[in-house]
Amino acid sequence: MAQTTPNHTQTVSGWAAHDQSGKIVPYTFKRRENGADDLTIKILYCGICHTDLHYAKNDWGLTMYPVVPGHEIVGIVTKVGNNVTKFKVGDRAGVGCLAATCLKCEYCKEGHENYCDELQFVYNGIFWDGSITYGGYSEFLVVDRRYVVRVPDNLPMDAAAPLLCAGITVYSPLKDNNLLETRGKRVGVVGLGGLGHIAVKFAKAFHHHVTVISTSPSKEKEAKERLGADDFILSTNPQQMLSKKRSLDFILDTVSAQHSLGAILELLKVNGTLVIVGAPDKPFDLPSFPLIFGKRVVKGSIIGSIEETQDMMDVCGKHNITCDIEVVSTNRINEALDRLAKNDVKYRFVIDIAGFSSKL
Amino acid sequence: MAQTTPNHTQTVSGWAAHDQSGKIVPYTFKRRENGADDLTIKILYCGICHTDLHYAKNDWGLTMYPVVPGHEIVGIVTKVGNNVTKFKVGDRAGVGCLAATCLKCEYCKEGHENYCDELQFVYNGIFWDGSITYGGYSEFLVVDRRYVVRVPDNLPMDAAAPLLCAGITVYSPLKDNNLLETRGKRVGVVGLGGLGHIAVKFAKAFHHHVTVISTSPSKEKEAKERLGADDFILSTNPQQMLSKKRSLDFILDTVSAQHSLGAILELLKVNGTLVIVGAPDKPFDLPSFPLIFGKRVVKGSIIGSIEETQDMMDVCGKHNITCDIEVVSTNRINEALDRLAKNDVKYRFVIDIAGFSSKL
Repeated sequence: MAQTTPNHTQTVSGWAAHDQSGKIVPYTFKRRENGADDLTIKILYCGICHTDLHYAKNDWGLTMYPVVPGHEIVGIVTKVGNNVTKFKVGDRAGVGCLAATCLKCEYCKEGHENYCDELQFVYNGIFWDGSITYGGYSEFLVVDRRYVVRVPDNLPMDAAAPLLCAGITVYSPLKDNNLLETRGKRVGVVGLGGLGHIAVKFAKAFHHHVTVISTSPSKEKEAKERLGADDFILSTNPQQMLSKKRSLDFILDTVSAQHSLGAILELLKVNGTLVIVGAPDKPFDLPSFPLIFGKRVVKGSIIGSIEETQDMMDVCGKHNITCDIEVVSTNRINEALDRLAKNDVKYRFVIDIAGFSSKL
Repeated sequence: MAQTTPNHTQTVSGWAAHDQSGKIVPYTFKRRENGADDLTIKILYCGICHTDLHYAKNDWGLTMYPVVPGHEIVGIVTKVGNNVTKFKVGDRAGVGCLAATCLKCEYCKEGHENYCDELQFVYNGIFWDGSITYGGYSEFLVVDRRYVVRVPDNLPMDAAAPLLCAGITVYSPLKDNNLLETRGKRVGVVGLGGLGHIAVKFAKAFHHHVTVISTSPSKEKEAKERLGADDFILSTNPQQMLSKKRSLDFILDTVSAQHSLGAILELLKVNGTLVIVGAPDKPFDLPSFPLIFGKRVVKGSIIGSIEETQDMMDVCGKHNITCDIEVVSTNRINEALDRLAKNDVKYRFVIDIAGFSSKL
């Protein structure tokens, strides 16, 4: 499928995994020249998403090595093509998961291009010119103008980076299920990691009653005191789970490990909705009884459209919402990935690509 | 939980399973006197639902033996209590799965009593007086007036019986997903058994394009020629499944055996809905990718409310919709259950309780 790409003339330094060990090492590669529809972005920060770990280790069997991960990218525009009207050199820009979509299907035309069947990701994807895409663990990016958003001036760039994936992944289903317009719904968030902690912040900003559902007793204090959650359910405690049966209107399940959805579904009221945004490598267990007896709904959602991502960025600017992060230098990427594999991070690692932060 | 029930004075002949062998034998038991809110119904016919097999064999670990199965009950009203205003002696009546609900919760009050958390079934349930309920494999039934519907005069009683469970189970999700008002949707029906064949009839009556999805090549001719389906997909053929990817708006999965939902979900368009009405004893496999990449929706649905059941009966009367059945005498119940376990029936067995049909 990959074609020759003669216009890939720009040399860029980055960091790549070369095999299933997932170990990340410095890697020099080529990017395309900045075309008429392109922007070049000097990358300042790139978040580390759990997906990066899946691709680095080829957990899904989809990895094209060497893979340069990273799809939570923020930086400064350094070049714009002739067709680029919405950005100029010096602008603060963000790039998330999308690198290319077909532009012709109903989903592309209606602004839901994240559901285009020909969607290609910003890394480990195949761009229109046939080249393999390389992500944000690198010094600069060349990106089509259709897949770039602005980062509001009041948001710190490092803590804004994870909004491009973690943020939009939880914002889109909240919006899609009318939780931006209504108030006071009983909202559950399963898993308090990179995605979950932002979901709590959004749900609280939109005036909902928020319950964190987690397997870790230690997260209760965190959830309530640091993030403002209203309630906490320890999912390994059957009594606690039973006592909250039929109590929630909506649950966002952010856990990326395989698990059963039965006990979680029981927490929902009749007609309640569970949205899945994680992608474990094994199927979920979906028992029929809690689904049918509660007429419950399980929905999938993947990231969000570019328009939604810009909306979310603006909402974050307005409400001053960013991610809680731990910044790491480029020589500590492997350490960060190892800790992420053990869920040992509060709540997102962000790589200081340009070395702007003080030595860490 | 079961209390003494001194007013259970009426002796009734029926048929019950006494252990996990699931073998059905004649069984004499007691029913309550006809109270002020009750109707007594002389049972003419009772359909055999796959659920009867699950309960007879205790597949779900819930059976209270001896169990008198049967929740697709039609007959003639022979007695009415003082509070019964909508039925009189001689009326044609139908009783489905429900025997009691709490009457107080929001679902009961809003006419969705099939989602009441205290719902009790017409057999293997606990009635308000503490007695265990016994179903329609019996000569007469005493039933609270809230759980009875009329059977339109133009429908044959035997072929109408399975509408009380199979019919309403597929009608309710079609109605709930706006498939009664809209036309020309692409509707899929997984499994062409007791539920599936009625789903095809309803979906065609409501002017949709209907695709039957089945593991049996022999069902193609049946589906198209006998039931009027527009298309057929052999689900064991990956090429056929792939060629129909993202083609359907709505799928009703009627299969009661455990299976993976992944390949079925891929048939849905973005935002498409899969409704599950079966209850296998093991969880479904729900892979994340087809769910999240297509923003697809999996919903549960169980039977329908009494109001919906009456609506459905009236719709069936208007469109002359009944089930395709095979009538069996009471001494052939075990044979019918054995054949049902092998899916060897087109499409529903109905027991001739009163012996009205000619010898079979």
